[in-house]
Amino acid sequence: MTARKSFASDNHAGAHEAVLRMMTRANTGDAASYGDDPWTERASAGLRELFGGSPGGVFLVFNGTAANVLALSLLLRPYEAVILPEGAHLNVDECGAAERVLGSKLLAVPTPDGKLTPALIAGRLSDRGDVHRAQPRAVAISQVTECGTCYTLEELRALGEFCRSEGLRLYADGARLANAAAQLGCSLADIAAPMDVLSFGGTKNGAVGVEAVVVMAEDLMTEVPFQRKQQMQLASKMRYLAAQLLGLLEDQLWLRNATHANLMARRLADGVRGTPGVELWQAVESNAVFAALRPDHIGRLQQEWEFYVWDERGHVVRWMTAFDTTEADVDAFAAAVRAAAPGHR
Amino acid sequence: MTARKSFASDNHAGAHEAVLRMMTRANTGDAASYGDDPWTERASAGLRELFGGSPGGVFLVFNGTAANVLALSLLLRPYEAVILPEGAHLNVDECGAAERVLGSKLLAVPTPDGKLTPALIAGRLSDRGDVHRAQPRAVAISQVTECGTCYTLEELRALGEFCRSEGLRLYADGARLANAAAQLGCSLADIAAPMDVLSFGGTKNGAVGVEAVVVMAEDLMTEVPFQRKQQMQLASKMRYLAAQLLGLLEDQLWLRNATHANLMARRLADGVRGTPGVELWQAVESNAVFAALRPDHIGRLQQEWEFYVWDERGHVVRWMTAFDTTEADVDAFAAAVRAAAPGHR
Amino acid sequence: MTARKSFASDNHAGAHEAVLRMMTRANTGDAASYGDDPWTERASAGLRELFGGSPGGVFLVFNGTAANVLALSLLLRPYEAVILPEGAHLNVDECGAAERVLGSKLLAVPTPDGKLTPALIAGRLSDRGDVHRAQPRAVAISQVTECGTCYTLEELRALGEFCRSEGLRLYADGARLANAAAQLGCSLADIAAPMDVLSFGGTKNGAVGVEAVVVMAEDLMTEVPFQRKQQMQLASKMRYLAAQLLGLLEDQLWLRNATHANLMARRLADGVRGTPGVELWQAVESNAVFAALRPDHIGRLQQEWEFYVWDERGHVVRWMTAFDTTEADVDAFAAAVRAAAPGHR
Amino acid sequence: MTARKSFASDNHAGAHEAVLRMMTRANTGDAASYGDDPWTERASAGLRELFGGSPGGVFLVFNGTAANVLALSLLLRPYEAVILPEGAHLNVDECGAAERVLGSKLLAVPTPDGKLTPALIAGRLSDRGDVHRAQPRAVAISQVTECGTCYTLEELRALGEFCRSEGLRLYADGARLANAAAQLGCSLADIAAPMDVLSFGGTKNGAVGVEAVVVMAEDLMTEVPFQRKQQMQLASKMRYLAAQLLGLLEDQLWLRNATHANLMARRLADGVRGTPGVELWQAVESNAVFAALRPDHIGRLQQEWEFYVWDERGHVVRWMTAFDTTEADVDAFAAAVRAAAPGHR
Repeated sequence: MTARKSFASDNHAGAHEAVLRMMTRANTGDAASYGDDPWTERASAGLRELFGGSPGGVFLVFNGTAANVLALSLLLRPYEAVILPEGAHLNVDECGAAERVLGSKLLAVPTPDGKLTPALIAGRLSDRGDVHRAQPRAVAISQVTECGTCYTLEELRALGEFCRSEGLRLYADGARLANAAAQLGCSLADIAAPMDVLSFGGTKNGAVGVEAVVVMAEDLMTEVPFQRKQQMQLASKMRYLAAQLLGLLEDQLWLRNATHANLMARRLADGVRGTPGVELWQAVESNAVFAALRPDHIGRLQQEWEFYVWDERGHVVRWMTAFDTTEADVDAFAAAVRAAAPGHR
Repeated sequence: MTARKSFASDNHAGAHEAVLRMMTRANTGDAASYGDDPWTERASAGLRELFGGSPGGVFLVFNGTAANVLALSLLLRPYEAVILPEGAHLNVDECGAAERVLGSKLLAVPTPDGKLTPALIAGRLSDRGDVHRAQPRAVAISQVTECGTCYTLEELRALGEFCRSEGLRLYADGARLANAAAQLGCSLADIAAPMDVLSFGGTKNGAVGVEAVVVMAEDLMTEVPFQRKQQMQLASKMRYLAAQLLGLLEDQLWLRNATHANLMARRLADGVRGTPGVELWQAVESNAVFAALRPDHIGRLQQEWEFYVWDERGHVVRWMTAFDTTEADVDAFAAAVRAAAPGHR
Repeated sequence: MTARKSFASDNHAGAHEAVLRMMTRANTGDAASYGDDPWTERASAGLRELFGGSPGGVFLVFNGTAANVLALSLLLRPYEAVILPEGAHLNVDECGAAERVLGSKLLAVPTPDGKLTPALIAGRLSDRGDVHRAQPRAVAISQVTECGTCYTLEELRALGEFCRSEGLRLYADGARLANAAAQLGCSLADIAAPMDVLSFGGTKNGAVGVEAVVVMAEDLMTEVPFQRKQQMQLASKMRYLAAQLLGLLEDQLWLRNATHANLMARRLADGVRGTPGVELWQAVESNAVFAALRPDHIGRLQQEWEFYVWDERGHVVRWMTAFDTTEADVDAFAAAVRAAAPGHR
Repeated sequence: MTARKSFASDNHAGAHEAVLRMMTRANTGDAASYGDDPWTERASAGLRELFGGSPGGVFLVFNGTAANVLALSLLLRPYEAVILPEGAHLNVDECGAAERVLGSKLLAVPTPDGKLTPALIAGRLSDRGDVHRAQPRAVAISQVTECGTCYTLEELRALGEFCRSEGLRLYADGARLANAAAQLGCSLADIAAPMDVLSFGGTKNGAVGVEAVVVMAEDLMTEVPFQRKQQMQLASKMRYLAAQLLGLLEDQLWLRNATHANLMARRLADGVRGTPGVELWQAVESNAVFAALRPDHIGRLQQEWEFYVWDERGHVVRWMTAFDTTEADVDAFAAAVRAAAPGHR
């Protein structure tokens, strides 16, 4: 680990001190376990308000993979399939958790920017009714996407309408939902409106480790507690998950954290734009900057800075900012990018 | 919630302040995610030492259900079965998690005191080789058992020898392993020696929420990281799970917590022994007291004190103590038990 | 194998020649695959009529384990459980197929005669709503039971009413349903009326190998074709499964076969009743005779005759008859039982 | 159904009369169930000989989907993945059976001709060791492929060597393995030599319905019987599955059937080659002819003849021949293709 700020992932960051403080405040003697405590009640109420009511309730789990799988478990029977972008975390970064826990097939669709469209979804619907084929029944998007891009509210509404018209359920992986709200300048309720279920990520937003599954469709509510327990995601001392979210909810810390991280990403993009041999690969619409660099340039940078090569063949790197990335961090890194650029002297 | 100390469960207790303090100490800027951080390294090293080396490694997960299922996933193929006591947490309190994640059958054996014996196990082995029957391949015990009893070291060794001689793998659910070590006055390594895998529970010992899967059999090690990830138990900011354990390891806090909780249980048992209509149901060998009471006695007590009725038909109640149960808590509760006893005036 | 008639299982018998004849008659050039053929249409129509309409349809599968698992897959989500007799084929003789394919827990209830009652079921319902417990959602009985006994129509109706009142679905494993109808002197529709789903076994009734899943509850129908395919039970040349059933349906061969087999079992029971050391263990209500014998008696008999020891500890044997068991077979075997009896000379 | 020969699928054909005859010959009184009968013993011995010994044994199942899933279940743990061609039956035509029964991810690779190569496989190996990714552990090919093409023996050997060098297991879906042997003029043992497991399809070769799982790698053998049972593929009257294979083995009927079907496909290809607007799409190396036609041409033909459109966008049709397709059938169909061609008068 280097003393320099990591640009590898927003989960390299620690927890916001307000989060840890709230955990400590929740540490006052006994509390009922498994969520029957006042902190969980308050966190749930707070989240439901942010999500415009979320009639199906709010359920806390330990991590993002679990949030994704729990959400899909509400939407699919094993012979049913979910349509998702090929690069979705659910598809490539969860070691087959969905297949194992759900027994369902994932129908992956290539996308240029991580975003599904009604047309892309429609292209996977031709097998409906064919008994030999897993039956498409849900669509999973990520907001922010794995490419750092954001769906606009119109795009989300169009997806929602298309899914409803086709009898498909719509889920949004919101590991970075706060960053999307910050980017779009809208409420979480605006983003959630077209969804059946979505997740709201705390971990990458400054929590120690907590995600919320937000159930918008009331008919899905009944089974969530049992699915969560069976999927090994029921915390006994749940107040400490809830307290993390209470820390993020207070004074809209979640939004301030996300807004800041996004700003740092744009500052970084601005700082490297025009550098010879550096080509920004996607629109910067969250706390991620993707760029294509020459291999030797990447090599020089990685000697001193931490980040991931996203696409080995295309030499695309990913630079993530976090709630605790400072302007000085960004400026130092941008300077390093420029200084290590080919031809620089 | 009542201001009176809860005797319902050791997970009603909060976290030990040393645990939260260590989490805060770990909150220093960036750290590599998914366990590649120094806190995880230190916690793993510390645990491995406690467990006599644990050649297969130590793996942190979020809760006890997950620890149980992850451990069994190393031991069973889907057509293989685990033999366990009928009242095992794995069998009755995990909403079918094992069946769902493993696809395996649980072979439950009635026991008077929550403890398996070679003879009880042998009684379930007659179907080996019969293609119509799930094949027994592992044995799961709990140490401490769900009845609050402890296996002696000789009993554990006998189980281990029997399992090895029968080609069975042996797992111990150690959600309260610290209490067992305190009771037996032995090391964790002593308990672990006959096992292939065991869990070490932090949550009920004063942590916020963390359990360790301790792999003794080296041949099982390779697949654990993948199984843990696929089972949705890989924490991204793992340092905060590790820090909890570091808090418990420091100055043997884990042992002091357990020793104290056990002592409180014995004090409670002593305080109610001989009360008319109160019959202690099991030996008090950990931080649990089980007692049979008259129904009206139970009713009167539950008006002011929190605890569970363990067996509705037999009117058996369970009283749990925790690291933070005080002598005054115990004495007040014991007095209440005596005062509410039938015939008391 | 001995030239003497086997009393080990009704699946030791061959196929009725009418079944093979019908398969040959179906072998006329092309036919659409996967069930879109006239034989499947005719067999389904014939079965639906026998089952009083069976609004949810009739679906052919390869064997009894598959029929059981497919049926339960319509009734359960993974966190839901089925209540069944401890000795149910589903529980003990299918190598954990239900656990693997459904991911659900089986809640086994000890029964003296293989039959569930509302009271026995009620005893397993106390955990409803408890998030830690698999949620009872279906009841599975066997008609004929694994003990050779038959539920009366009143008993079935009482089970149906109880299940409906409790929000439980009711399934009957009908591997020997024909024998039950023959025993009760009722129609298959009478037996089926209280059920949500049941199976109708062809294999033990003289087929080569075919079982029907009969869906009574119309709301379950839609997903059956997909579940069957995903569970690897969709025959491509399905006409040959259908033809077997057409052979059994013609001139009520299914009923004649079952009536004959039942008669042979009663003849056998009559033939051994009163033999010293032979104690009939269950009412003879189908094509099975269970009897307790002295171990040495069993040993002498098994030197020349094939049958299973059902309960090693109680020295209970099971003698099965089949559609092709003759009076001479029975009389010879009964004579052998008497001749081998202890004290006989 | 039309009186004209179907070119839709080789499973539209009936059974070869020798198969039904052998089933009838096996119908002689009692036989032990579940495979302990002389027919199963003879069929297994016969197949093992054909496969050069097949040290791991031969196991009969009901259909092709089951053969595929059973085979993979021997090769994969749930966190492990199989690499296969995107168009593999396992991937697209089994309604997600593999995902459900195995819990594993399928890693699909686009191929122009249905054939994998070491290079294509290598392209999916970069994630090995990354805990977030399902771990490639097996490769599944189809011989004959879903595009009607055949791997040469050199190609198979190269795959086998590559897999061994990479620690990957190799499986071949042999639903049409007989057609491959006929095409290559080699033995089944030649094809099987590089494999760990393969299936041998009876159904499309003239059987009523039976497939064999042929286990070449001896270390995989032990668990097959249990896996087969748990996967609901253990036939009680197994002699009737075995008899079908005995029918096909006698006088190499399997090879004669396949040779004939292949010949008919080549005759069909020859008969339509050069027809305006008809473009053969793949090499004709089995009993399938793929051709691109104009949409109106397809429409006219389908009014009187049965076949599938394989690729709606590319207007590619698939014409299958079978063991019972006659020269007259082919000539009539080829004439119809020519007569319906655009511009024909």
